[in-house]
Amino acid sequence: MTTNKAHFPLKEQFQLPKDTIYLDGNSLGPLQKLVNKDLSDVINTEWGEHLITAWNIDAWMEQPLRVGNLIGKIIGAPEGSVMMGDTLSIKVYQALSAALQMRPTRKIILSDSGNFPTDLYIAQGLIAHLNNGYELKIVEPEEIESAISKNVAAVMITQVDYRTGRLHDMKSITQKAHEMGSVMIWDLAHSAGAVELDLEAINCEFAVGCTYKFLNGGPGSPAFIYVRPDLTEQIAPALSGWMGHEAPFAFDQSYRPALSIERMRVGTPPVVQLSILESALQIWHNIDMKELRTASIALSELFIEQVEKRCPQLILASPKNPEHRGSQVSFKFKNGYAVVQALIANGLIGDFRAPNIIRFGITPLYISEADIHKAVDIIVNIMENNLWEDPKFNKANRVT
Amino acid sequence: MTTNKAHFPLKEQFQLPKDTIYLDGNSLGPLQKLVNKDLSDVINTEWGEHLITAWNIDAWMEQPLRVGNLIGKIIGAPEGSVMMGDTLSIKVYQALSAALQMRPTRKIILSDSGNFPTDLYIAQGLIAHLNNGYELKIVEPEEIESAISKNVAAVMITQVDYRTGRLHDMKSITQKAHEMGSVMIWDLAHSAGAVELDLEAINCEFAVGCTYKFLNGGPGSPAFIYVRPDLTEQIAPALSGWMGHEAPFAFDQSYRPALSIERMRVGTPPVVQLSILESALQIWHNIDMKELRTASIALSELFIEQVEKRCPQLILASPKNPEHRGSQVSFKFKNGYAVVQALIANGLIGDFRAPNIIRFGITPLYISEADIHKAVDIIVNIMENNLWEDPKFNKANRVT
Repeated sequence: MTTNKAHFPLKEQFQLPKDTIYLDGNSLGPLQKLVNKDLSDVINTEWGEHLITAWNIDAWMEQPLRVGNLIGKIIGAPEGSVMMGDTLSIKVYQALSAALQMRPTRKIILSDSGNFPTDLYIAQGLIAHLNNGYELKIVEPEEIESAISKNVAAVMITQVDYRTGRLHDMKSITQKAHEMGSVMIWDLAHSAGAVELDLEAINCEFAVGCTYKFLNGGPGSPAFIYVRPDLTEQIAPALSGWMGHEAPFAFDQSYRPALSIERMRVGTPPVVQLSILESALQIWHNIDMKELRTASIALSELFIEQVEKRCPQLILASPKNPEHRGSQVSFKFKNGYAVVQALIANGLIGDFRAPNIIRFGITPLYISEADIHKAVDIIVNIMENNLWEDPKFNKANRVT
Repeated sequence: MTTNKAHFPLKEQFQLPKDTIYLDGNSLGPLQKLVNKDLSDVINTEWGEHLITAWNIDAWMEQPLRVGNLIGKIIGAPEGSVMMGDTLSIKVYQALSAALQMRPTRKIILSDSGNFPTDLYIAQGLIAHLNNGYELKIVEPEEIESAISKNVAAVMITQVDYRTGRLHDMKSITQKAHEMGSVMIWDLAHSAGAVELDLEAINCEFAVGCTYKFLNGGPGSPAFIYVRPDLTEQIAPALSGWMGHEAPFAFDQSYRPALSIERMRVGTPPVVQLSILESALQIWHNIDMKELRTASIALSELFIEQVEKRCPQLILASPKNPEHRGSQVSFKFKNGYAVVQALIANGLIGDFRAPNIIRFGITPLYISEADIHKAVDIIVNIMENNLWEDPKFNKANRVT
């Protein structure tokens, strides 16, 4: 990792649309050129020619772990501790159901209002489903550490707030959780590929994350789950599918979980999506996360400084201190939705999160200082001339 | 559907490997030529150019339901009753957890030994997880109907046996389940695209299935779940992810299930896999399932007749009566694994299922009478000359 360090940006490896500045890699990372060639092999040679034999010939069966190991390097997890598959919501369910098993006498799942809603929803569904006195307690992000008590079975929070980019202190919160005997689950959706992570040092029990944001795995790219190696064999998976069986092709009638992270597999893996992700992850072999983070902070600071100076209508919603911020910068503006639509129409893609947050992902892999300056020029033009007031930018809020 | 009927086979629409007869479409269906062009659009235009805006511009958000409606036509389910996503194992979990909610005083899940193991494993994991006195009762396939009693919460079986192709009588079993007040869940993994189905007439509560077999969606293609329309709004989803929320982009802290089949969605959909599947499903617009089934039976009967006549060592493991058989033909042979390896090496792809089953999928979309004759010639050559005894064909059993 240190011999062939990458120098940012690595824009030439990406297939970015012309005349567009893409500050939304925190939502959906862009396409890399490498993907097309590799994908053609997967479709035409592996599926098209090898057909069913590709499970062996092309090692499709090992792919979820192989890709998990690539993710492991990016998040500081040891070999064999990260498994790919399904979606982040499903991975949250796996982690949370396992955590509750580990603390059978405790009834509280603790989270914060900065968590992404699906994590909260999954906890709510799990609780209703178990129907056994569990409670989801949601506190403000700044209260999370003090709210951890000996009644808490699991602390489940997202490190980087999806709206503001506020960054939780993983070390300190995990330490408090462990002092109180709680299981710690980190959601790294906005962290993996964005900030330095060292799960081994943090010592949390579980981590989950998605791969279509800063890891550029493409739309619908599968999620990951990390299980601390000493715990793997203790977990009785709630989602006990055949791919997590110790011997899937023995076709036994009784479930017997694999004696490794393989037990976190559920059904047949999404081979095509995993292949795209595997190609997309190649770029990380030469990336030093510390340098990437330094570059991200430099770009973010420049962006904030320029926007604050030139667009005083936009109020910074992200922490001012870069050490307390992930790799995104958000601003508040009452008509944020219309502003984002106007920006997109003028060549700057960011996104909107209800009720009033304009988000910009800062991704040094393909964003340069020059891009930041251009982005600011576009924002200034929209805001100074009130271009967002055009009725065409005020349609009902939908997806972005 | 009746004006432009397809005439089988439609081989020119498939990109099949040369010099290979593929009788394994019951495991992984082959690639269609259409897929490559459509996939290039999804990757390069939708993801590459439109990036995050593709969720709106290219209607990615509606894709799981749009594709579900295409599946619905093939399985006789009404518009808006089928949802795509995840894997078959996850869909079994959704159906089974909902069924148990619907019959809170009953504790038995009934299945049979012909069910695919992952369905049984998922039931076992769910039972252990709920830890509330549930029991999975597994009987022989021929005993299933008589085993349905007023203690059974849910009957969960696969219509077509993955090893033998034995076909359950959906109508009669569902009727018995309903007489006993049990919820009926059908796994259509080996049925969808293989046999005529009319879920609306059958009136079962749930059905699930996969799309990479007879529906040719490619490796890792997502699964489907059917919920009988009158029940949709009664189900509190155990897997309550944000995509199943009534308003996912309101980012509320409380889960509130969508008032439609959308509540069966969990996380972010696998856009690329769904797009491949959507392309692969286009061929079904002009297919009459009755004619397809007739063609399947004709090919199967020919195949059985020829193999029984020319290879008496192979013992038919499938029902003799075509009305009791799905779209596959299986034979028993002690050294079945080695035989399958020898067949593959000689241009005929079938597959092996432990302990002694050689399976052949009969798929009239791309298999002709001439292919059946060629396939039989290859089998005869392997069996008459004991070519399977070559040590290279006897490696340890793995994936196929």
